[in-house]
Amino acid sequence: MTSTRATLIQVAERAGVSLASTSRALHGAGASKAMVERVRAAAEELGYSADAIGRSLRMKKTFQIAFAVADIGNPVYVEMMRAIHEVLAPHGYRVVVMSTGDTSDSTIELVRSLGSGFVDGMVVSPLRTDDGLITEIQQAPVPVVVIGRAMDDRGISSVSTDSAGGIGEAVRHLHAIGRRRIGFLNGPVDTTPGASRQRGFDAAVTAGDLTAERIERETAQDFTVGAGLEAARRLLARVPEGGPQLDALVAANDLLAIGAIRAVRELGLSVPEDVAVTGMDDTEIGRVFQPSLTSVSLGATERGRAAARLMLQLADDPDQPAQQVSVGAELMVRESTTTERGAR
Amino acid sequence: MTSTRATLIQVAERAGVSLASTSRALHGAGASKAMVERVRAAAEELGYSADAIGRSLRMKKTFQIAFAVADIGNPVYVEMMRAIHEVLAPHGYRVVVMSTGDTSDSTIELVRSLGSGFVDGMVVSPLRTDDGLITEIQQAPVPVVVIGRAMDDRGISSVSTDSAGGIGEAVRHLHAIGRRRIGFLNGPVDTTPGASRQRGFDAAVTAGDLTAERIERETAQDFTVGAGLEAARRLLARVPEGGPQLDALVAANDLLAIGAIRAVRELGLSVPEDVAVTGMDDTEIGRVFQPSLTSVSLGATERGRAAARLMLQLADDPDQPAQQVSVGAELMVRESTTTERGAR
Repeated sequence: MTSTRATLIQVAERAGVSLASTSRALHGAGASKAMVERVRAAAEELGYSADAIGRSLRMKKTFQIAFAVADIGNPVYVEMMRAIHEVLAPHGYRVVVMSTGDTSDSTIELVRSLGSGFVDGMVVSPLRTDDGLITEIQQAPVPVVVIGRAMDDRGISSVSTDSAGGIGEAVRHLHAIGRRRIGFLNGPVDTTPGASRQRGFDAAVTAGDLTAERIERETAQDFTVGAGLEAARRLLARVPEGGPQLDALVAANDLLAIGAIRAVRELGLSVPEDVAVTGMDDTEIGRVFQPSLTSVSLGATERGRAAARLMLQLADDPDQPAQQVSVGAELMVRESTTTERGAR
Repeated sequence: MTSTRATLIQVAERAGVSLASTSRALHGAGASKAMVERVRAAAEELGYSADAIGRSLRMKKTFQIAFAVADIGNPVYVEMMRAIHEVLAPHGYRVVVMSTGDTSDSTIELVRSLGSGFVDGMVVSPLRTDDGLITEIQQAPVPVVVIGRAMDDRGISSVSTDSAGGIGEAVRHLHAIGRRRIGFLNGPVDTTPGASRQRGFDAAVTAGDLTAERIERETAQDFTVGAGLEAARRLLARVPEGGPQLDALVAANDLLAIGAIRAVRELGLSVPEDVAVTGMDDTEIGRVFQPSLTSVSLGATERGRAAARLMLQLADDPDQPAQQVSVGAELMVRESTTTERGAR
């Protein structure tokens, strides 16, 4: 292993020619055959690879695209990542996955770091989006595509979905199968997904056609299984001794739903017979879970593909106008809300 | 958003000075005050950020470390990634996650790309490791730490574990609870994990103290839930009509085990009563699954931390001798092999 990377300057010194000549010779931008041979030899001796430096000086392209998400452990992001890779790979781009962190500030820091030029663009799905972050994205040194809330008003290309409407579908489905005591298990409401899902639940349960005996709301610390388990325990413990337990739980994503199912079973209750549970994101783990999860698909693969296609266009022409893509929500009914085993 | 990134060459042209002077002026490597002001002004006008180019010329450091794995969807890698992040972040390093692809060649390509200098080092967990890849790693332009098989003989820093011994523990546990018809559900045997787990199973079932009525082996296409479901169906279908079904399945990882549990239930059999199932990697999804998975922990977090610590040392001194760290295996007994619900 070479202990250090040689720099263009070292190659120039070794070749005894100017830095500019070295760059030209290495990148075929007009240099004499003798010069080229001389510089190539020096580069070879030093183990210098026509690398980021060279490529940056030459064409300002790294052929890497960043995909930044808050939680790489969330399978919905893995699905998006695969879709982004499928679209970008044939065009010679590599996808590097990065963490935005939980806060808007940590995401801002990440966007700023793009100035170091290690990627040609970024697809980002921010957990929290404030004006500071939006301004930063508008001024980003490379093209940025946002997966999350629509950004039409901000001149930022974005891919959005209808999670609020999707939560509504879940609530109406539970109502349709006769559930009247519905609990909502949400993630932090100060997040982009948490806020829209809260809006969707509130709208659905206050709609005229819905008759409910009991509505409860609880917020998990984050969107993970562990947080879902703890929050669901709190939610289910709220029912007064002897009073009728909730008969349905609407979880803001599949991980929270899996935590909720465990909490239900801890009380000796069964899913879906005693408590029907719905998730959101339609992840593989939800599909293979026992019982398989009724879940609202927000088209993770479609969103990833759409974001990657927008990124390809921006990589070719960063000055083209921002575009907005919207992907619909669809409820996938499975075992966690139906006793028909055929639902599998 | 700036449509393009200015290059050092453009700054030099704008300032009307040589590329070398421009670099010296921007990176404080000895230039007159007038020169510095002149170059800084040009850089400002062009929106040039002292970026990858500047940092590379200056200190050859990106403060990014790559973590490369075959399947970002596998929770065991997510656990490693978090551990690596926890160790590196306090030292100012960002972790970027990349895919090695399935083959040794795609991994070799990735190692070569490190020459482009977008990371200061790489922690890699290759699915397939051949001499070509090992040679490439030995010549890598930045420090590389391998999580996988021990590399002591190759002068490569590595973190290994005892998956073969771990599979043996699972087999002996199933034998101890009275299971005598054991099936082994492995991933591709031409992979590093597949080969060692196969070795471990074969050694365990041929050990003198083990008395088995029936031993079956089946290979899944990869290490995913879907592949595990299909392979487990094939494995369970092998039992002749009316003959006694297998009473235990040893899966090569938790995802295969989850697929296996679904296959068992498709036959109307129950886990663990009819068929006990063990996994490997002790992932969160296995812990929250119903039934919770008895699984062999291979210390994913410990391995990630150890690899990150080795990387920190190599980042400081790439010439220091290669080090080997080994993390032990431990069987975690849960619901999938015991009917005592207390096991939760």
